[in-house]
Amino acid sequence: MKFNKPYTLKNLAEGINAEFCGDPEFEISGINEIHKVSVGDITFVDHEKYYSKALNSEASAIIINKKVDCPAGKVLVFSDDPFRDFNRISSKHLSVKKQDEQISLSSKIGLGTIIQPGVFIGENVVIGENCLIQPNVTIYENTIIGNNVCIHAGTVIGADAFYYKRRATGYDKLISCGRVIIEDDVEIGANCTIDKGVSGETIIGKGTKLDNLIQVAHDTVIGKNCLIASQVGIAGCVKIEDDVILWGQVGVQKDLTIGKGAIVLGQSGISKSLEGNKVYFGSPVQEAKQKMKELALIKRIPEILKNGKPEKLKT
Amino acid sequence: MKFNKPYTLKNLAEGINAEFCGDPEFEISGINEIHKVSVGDITFVDHEKYYSKALNSEASAIIINKKVDCPAGKVLVFSDDPFRDFNRISSKHLSVKKQDEQISLSSKIGLGTIIQPGVFIGENVVIGENCLIQPNVTIYENTIIGNNVCIHAGTVIGADAFYYKRRATGYDKLISCGRVIIEDDVEIGANCTIDKGVSGETIIGKGTKLDNLIQVAHDTVIGKNCLIASQVGIAGCVKIEDDVILWGQVGVQKDLTIGKGAIVLGQSGISKSLEGNKVYFGSPVQEAKQKMKELALIKRIPEILKNGKPEKLKT
Amino acid sequence: MKFNKPYTLKNLAEGINAEFCGDPEFEISGINEIHKVSVGDITFVDHEKYYSKALNSEASAIIINKKVDCPAGKVLVFSDDPFRDFNRISSKHLSVKKQDEQISLSSKIGLGTIIQPGVFIGENVVIGENCLIQPNVTIYENTIIGNNVCIHAGTVIGADAFYYKRRATGYDKLISCGRVIIEDDVEIGANCTIDKGVSGETIIGKGTKLDNLIQVAHDTVIGKNCLIASQVGIAGCVKIEDDVILWGQVGVQKDLTIGKGAIVLGQSGISKSLEGNKVYFGSPVQEAKQKMKELALIKRIPEILKNGKPEKLKT
Repeated sequence: MKFNKPYTLKNLAEGINAEFCGDPEFEISGINEIHKVSVGDITFVDHEKYYSKALNSEASAIIINKKVDCPAGKVLVFSDDPFRDFNRISSKHLSVKKQDEQISLSSKIGLGTIIQPGVFIGENVVIGENCLIQPNVTIYENTIIGNNVCIHAGTVIGADAFYYKRRATGYDKLISCGRVIIEDDVEIGANCTIDKGVSGETIIGKGTKLDNLIQVAHDTVIGKNCLIASQVGIAGCVKIEDDVILWGQVGVQKDLTIGKGAIVLGQSGISKSLEGNKVYFGSPVQEAKQKMKELALIKRIPEILKNGKPEKLKT
Repeated sequence: MKFNKPYTLKNLAEGINAEFCGDPEFEISGINEIHKVSVGDITFVDHEKYYSKALNSEASAIIINKKVDCPAGKVLVFSDDPFRDFNRISSKHLSVKKQDEQISLSSKIGLGTIIQPGVFIGENVVIGENCLIQPNVTIYENTIIGNNVCIHAGTVIGADAFYYKRRATGYDKLISCGRVIIEDDVEIGANCTIDKGVSGETIIGKGTKLDNLIQVAHDTVIGKNCLIASQVGIAGCVKIEDDVILWGQVGVQKDLTIGKGAIVLGQSGISKSLEGNKVYFGSPVQEAKQKMKELALIKRIPEILKNGKPEKLKT
Repeated sequence: MKFNKPYTLKNLAEGINAEFCGDPEFEISGINEIHKVSVGDITFVDHEKYYSKALNSEASAIIINKKVDCPAGKVLVFSDDPFRDFNRISSKHLSVKKQDEQISLSSKIGLGTIIQPGVFIGENVVIGENCLIQPNVTIYENTIIGNNVCIHAGTVIGADAFYYKRRATGYDKLISCGRVIIEDDVEIGANCTIDKGVSGETIIGKGTKLDNLIQVAHDTVIGKNCLIASQVGIAGCVKIEDDVILWGQVGVQKDLTIGKGAIVLGQSGISKSLEGNKVYFGSPVQEAKQKMKELALIKRIPEILKNGKPEKLKT
């Protein structure tokens, strides 16, 4: 994420009361996680095993909790807690500005697209052609929306990731630098929430249809032509492959993969990756036929209690 | 659903590149499913068993995938995929228009009704007397609301049905032509979503109370004096009779009936019709006392494993 | 809750067609439940065991279903149904007024706080410093928000309690007189709903973080530094102590306590109070390790059915 204007090393370091090495007038133009940095960016490193990676990255400035020499062409900011100071800079320089207009003048909206009253469109949003954005939808900054997309009323695209670091005194939020990408021919129901990536992208693939009141968390990637029913909740960093169907109120835990063509029945709770082209049910989830068998077996416990051993040995 | 103005047969058929039989200047005034057509409407038929019904219906124009003779007083449009072409016409002629004002001038609002800021009211909406519509509510076109109704902030009434036909290349949406009817004395909490019918009506009966974040899908009919707690999700075409109570996070599958006076405990998953005046629990749902018994029996499995046969034969 | 202007005894009593005793010009300045009354208020009593409490309370006017003498300095209104008539007065004199402006002029907003477009702020709302209120948020009257609070788009703070009295003819709503208090450093995700107290306060404690689409009902008190994941639903009058973590889609029944530091895994259903510093799972909830053991035991039923007695007696 680039700053709105470059800041000098002196300016940034003084803002967080930190010592630094390098030219005080050195200009820093953006801020990013170590995995996403490019020239001009400031990043942070707080663990020994990443020192070398950070010092050799494209980053021009590094917040670091070790006194090392300034590498050629780079500047350093010394901190006892680089995570905290990285966030301080993010929150000072990237934090949401008051937007006076409902639709930012920096957004781009394609031909034939209808924006109904009460819609908020943040900075640098791009919306394609022939889309329909229903009333009271909120689209946060930097969101990218393709062509022929329909978003129903009240849905929120691009709110912050729910991502905190536990501290002795409470939770520290990692500022979200990512965005949401919605591909062509997607339809999203009413009052859904699709969060931006922490440093990457949350993606809804081409032709996928979402019902109402669905949660899609940060950095989750949903494939093409999926069908997601109402009140499904999908945690962060999930990968859902193409042609998956999730029925109502399914919950999906973070950091897992649901294979192509899988079907998950209503209210299931998914806590591990699932192979494609199978049908699943239960919380925790199992293959549906196995779950149904177990439900039938539970009904035979009275028989066991009565007879010690069942009369007929059919399992 | 009537068009905003009549279209000629020639105009509609050329818009979808289709051949036709009948007077090119024949005027068509609306579009509807075969179950709902009246004189002046265009409808579609794509299966042999409905040809006769369509050709003898009140429809004035029929999109059909068989070359038949033009019936007296009717016109025909020939198509290899009538579903697709029906939708094409719907989406061209019924599709949402940009509404510049937050409250459509074609809506009617009764005496004593309060509409708070940020509310969107679409075309031809009728709201009765002494209602309270809280901020940022969205009410789609054609919704009918009775007297003494309260709708809390952020709720969305009348978004499209989640209803798609699977094609080789993705999902085709059936354009929703229905509406929502909310009867007198209903209260709806915040951030709920109540979808319009596909071709019929979604109804919330007199005196029924909904908590927050509830989903009611297309064509579902809820009776009088029901109590629906927070985060309940009800799929499409469900019939809920009078005096039913659904506690929090219950899920209801489509096309079933919940009998008068039934009570369903929290987080239950309803996959079959339920008799009235009983208490239910579980996912999948059972009578609550049976479910509770099963939960107790599961706790006796260690005893069985230890003894082979339980010491006391109490089930 | 105080009226906007005082009403005379005659005026209030005639509005509900009730007899009264006392000076017809006696002025009544507010309305409250018996537990919250102060001088100038009207309250109600409809049960023998509270007559004495009401007649000796600070209330200046009492709606009562028993013909008693007028106590010194007080006035009485006689009613066959004091609950009904209390509500009638509340709804006439406290009912929401049409607010023409999106942000009430009676609200107070601290330095550095950003209010984005489409936000509604009701009467007497107080918001602290350096808060960020994202687009299309609705904040009902009397809500108190601390410093450094972030509320994401579409969230609704302070809608009415879901609280009804069953009558032969339907449900009677008890008018909510309470409010919501959000302490410093709280973050609330998108499209959440946090209801006001019936007569007390719904509180979100300092440093607590809520994800998206979460329901918090009336009079519930959440402690400090809790983490509540997406789609959790918490019923009314619940007490959640500090440092509790509730994962996604957990449901919490009313009137119970979750102890400090408890962790509840996703989709659990909490129907009883939980001790702190333990991990829980299931619907109905158990300690997670016990629940996991039961899930494993169910898988051994086929073995029991086959052998009558398991080969190895490991439980």
